[in-house]
Amino acid sequence: MSETRTLASYVVSARYDDIPQDVRHEAARSLVNYMAVALAGSVDPAVDIAIRALAPFSGKPTAAVLGRVERLDPLHASLMNGISSHVDDFDDTTPQNYIHPTSPVASALFAYASANQVTGRDLVQAFILGFEAESRVGNAVYPAHYDVGWHITGTAGIFGAAAAIGRLRGLTEQQMVWALGLAATQAAGLREMFGSMGKAFHPGRAAQNGYASAILAENGFTAGERGIEGPRGFAAVQSAKYDLAKVADGLGSDFNLRRNTYKPYPCGIVNHPTIESCIELHHTHHLQPTDIVAVRLRVAPLVLDLCNQQNITRGLQGKFSVYHGAAVGLVRGKAGLDEYTDAAVNDPDVKRVREHVTATGDPTLTEDQAEVEVALADGRRVTWSVEQSLGNVHRPLSDRQLDEKFRSSAVRALPPEAADIVLDRCWRIADLDDVSVLVDATVPAVERA
Amino acid sequence: MSETRTLASYVVSARYDDIPQDVRHEAARSLVNYMAVALAGSVDPAVDIAIRALAPFSGKPTAAVLGRVERLDPLHASLMNGISSHVDDFDDTTPQNYIHPTSPVASALFAYASANQVTGRDLVQAFILGFEAESRVGNAVYPAHYDVGWHITGTAGIFGAAAAIGRLRGLTEQQMVWALGLAATQAAGLREMFGSMGKAFHPGRAAQNGYASAILAENGFTAGERGIEGPRGFAAVQSAKYDLAKVADGLGSDFNLRRNTYKPYPCGIVNHPTIESCIELHHTHHLQPTDIVAVRLRVAPLVLDLCNQQNITRGLQGKFSVYHGAAVGLVRGKAGLDEYTDAAVNDPDVKRVREHVTATGDPTLTEDQAEVEVALADGRRVTWSVEQSLGNVHRPLSDRQLDEKFRSSAVRALPPEAADIVLDRCWRIADLDDVSVLVDATVPAVERA
Repeated sequence: MSETRTLASYVVSARYDDIPQDVRHEAARSLVNYMAVALAGSVDPAVDIAIRALAPFSGKPTAAVLGRVERLDPLHASLMNGISSHVDDFDDTTPQNYIHPTSPVASALFAYASANQVTGRDLVQAFILGFEAESRVGNAVYPAHYDVGWHITGTAGIFGAAAAIGRLRGLTEQQMVWALGLAATQAAGLREMFGSMGKAFHPGRAAQNGYASAILAENGFTAGERGIEGPRGFAAVQSAKYDLAKVADGLGSDFNLRRNTYKPYPCGIVNHPTIESCIELHHTHHLQPTDIVAVRLRVAPLVLDLCNQQNITRGLQGKFSVYHGAAVGLVRGKAGLDEYTDAAVNDPDVKRVREHVTATGDPTLTEDQAEVEVALADGRRVTWSVEQSLGNVHRPLSDRQLDEKFRSSAVRALPPEAADIVLDRCWRIADLDDVSVLVDATVPAVERA
Repeated sequence: MSETRTLASYVVSARYDDIPQDVRHEAARSLVNYMAVALAGSVDPAVDIAIRALAPFSGKPTAAVLGRVERLDPLHASLMNGISSHVDDFDDTTPQNYIHPTSPVASALFAYASANQVTGRDLVQAFILGFEAESRVGNAVYPAHYDVGWHITGTAGIFGAAAAIGRLRGLTEQQMVWALGLAATQAAGLREMFGSMGKAFHPGRAAQNGYASAILAENGFTAGERGIEGPRGFAAVQSAKYDLAKVADGLGSDFNLRRNTYKPYPCGIVNHPTIESCIELHHTHHLQPTDIVAVRLRVAPLVLDLCNQQNITRGLQGKFSVYHGAAVGLVRGKAGLDEYTDAAVNDPDVKRVREHVTATGDPTLTEDQAEVEVALADGRRVTWSVEQSLGNVHRPLSDRQLDEKFRSSAVRALPPEAADIVLDRCWRIADLDDVSVLVDATVPAVERA
């Protein structure tokens, strides 16, 4: 039995009414979180540059780009939405495979829905099915695939975009097999790009190329029939170890969307328990920067593998520095987008505290845990520890916390009143007759200066 | 020292006058061969479908598609040119890495030159440098990369397209480093697609995405600095074994273009010595189909790994059947594009002879060698053997043989007089003030019925 065909068969035939209510609600939460980070990221220079470079090649401008005044064809809009929604490292994560799952799928869907009339119900269904396709392909190859250096958000994400757009286009099972095959043969994205704009490019290209895969297959462009499981297919070629059973087991009942998580802080997720501890210490002890003499972290060893940069000068580096995370938590009592700018990384108070942080890897701690001890100028030592990091699957952000994240993020692109309209439509997305009213609401009234 | 930067530095600074005359002539031969196969392939249904599917997303139609009346933006034209030039499996091969090298590079260059004024000299230079970049990246990862299942024409090809377009755009060294990085992070194409339209899609996407990589980098879109050699870069992630020294050794003196080869027959290259033997037997002994009682082949073992299909019904399967190659050689005395149609595969005479062929793998034979014995109805046994297959690097097609290949291929898209104009301009390409006069000459006066 072909895993590609089993997955294709499910995606083209699943019924909305068979999707449990809690899964549909998690879809809305994922899309609220997505829209928050896409709007925040829409003002990033990476998006400015990508539009400047590629707009001359754009087709008819039938699609809005989220948070932007420029309009592009839907394939290019998919790319830009994907860059926006990942560039701040603030989008969602499924910890079982480290995919940032919503960006590739939703970036294509909102571009499609901007250029074509799509009901909210159809979009939510396509999103859930695309999410499922992407997650299951990712589960089958994780961790070997990720460990060797693939950015799994790009490589698995393209399957999700192809499945989601293919479902909206009403592909047959055979066409969906081809769409997944064309996705397989374009699955790309190297972790070597981390720290550059290339990282955010990955979910963008996944969205754009997955969308194109669906359109090509719909028109009869053929692909290998066993793109996922064939002897020269995605799993065999791109992963030293894999378990194809994970593609289809529990399909239709065990929804990966239930295990999605949303970041409270726009940085590498393994820094989060440290940051949370430091924010708690700041507020509990009313710390002033000059109070802080030394900071000692105990963290999971992986934290030091991924986030061990201390001498940094750029905001992007701060996202992968547990020292910077600790410093902004202690100095500012928060770690929002403003704490990961170049200015924040070079803020003298933050810099001084950052330089006083030491970190020890402790294999008895999980990546959801951290212990922080701060030595104060008056001789006291204050401590905080976190057992389950805020935002993880056991301690998820509440709907209200997602509202807060949305409002503080969206204001980078929109006035508060306009942001609230987007937020309201996001929560009610399944009831919208035409998703373009949501997409249109993300477009600023005037271009940024 | 960074291999990516070394390669980038060479590509942006190499001088035309430092390229030896024999290399420049081989460039013209490669482009004549490319144009032959692109024109032949331009009438393939894969191109019809790709244009139908993607033209609605095309930007301003500033570029001609080779052999077609439709015009598209240059990125989409690159894609279509890439599909055309590979879909018949008739394009060139560098045997040391099994790349079909001209398609990804020239497909982007002719699309670019259609939309922008480019001299022939600049285009030839960009082609040679792109070819070099692609070949060297391929040499570094071959054979492990190919053996595991990557279609190296796609994965290495994108580096060539990025380098070639980047050179025409006048990228700085730093921009070229980013362009190569963006190429690395989009390098894709699985051998699981062989036998479907997905195979020809690979050099098309390589051309299109390599072109876009150059444009993005020119505009300041950043990538990892060590896309080829970094610990999470192309070589480490996409090849179990690799030799990075092959990227830069002999750069500027040892031109890979000198080792390019051109196929006399539009099928898997390992079938060629068998086909040549059978064509010789046909003409020497004036064979009629009914004369042939049995055919025994001795071939390199790899032939039976790749081309062991005997019960076939489609032209595309014939390209990977040594039995079919033997049959058309013996029955028709030729193995051109007409011998690889569905009709030819189902021709009763060809089918009957194909069913009388047996093949034995012999490890003492190389892939350039074959021995054929035919048992005739009158009791005679006739034999032929080939030591160096026509078209291989030791017995290359002459310029006149390339002319013949061009004329018999191009007539699929153009009237003979129009084809001759294209051929003449191809040979004189380095003297053209504006390559668009060559590209424009490939466009049919009227659309095919």
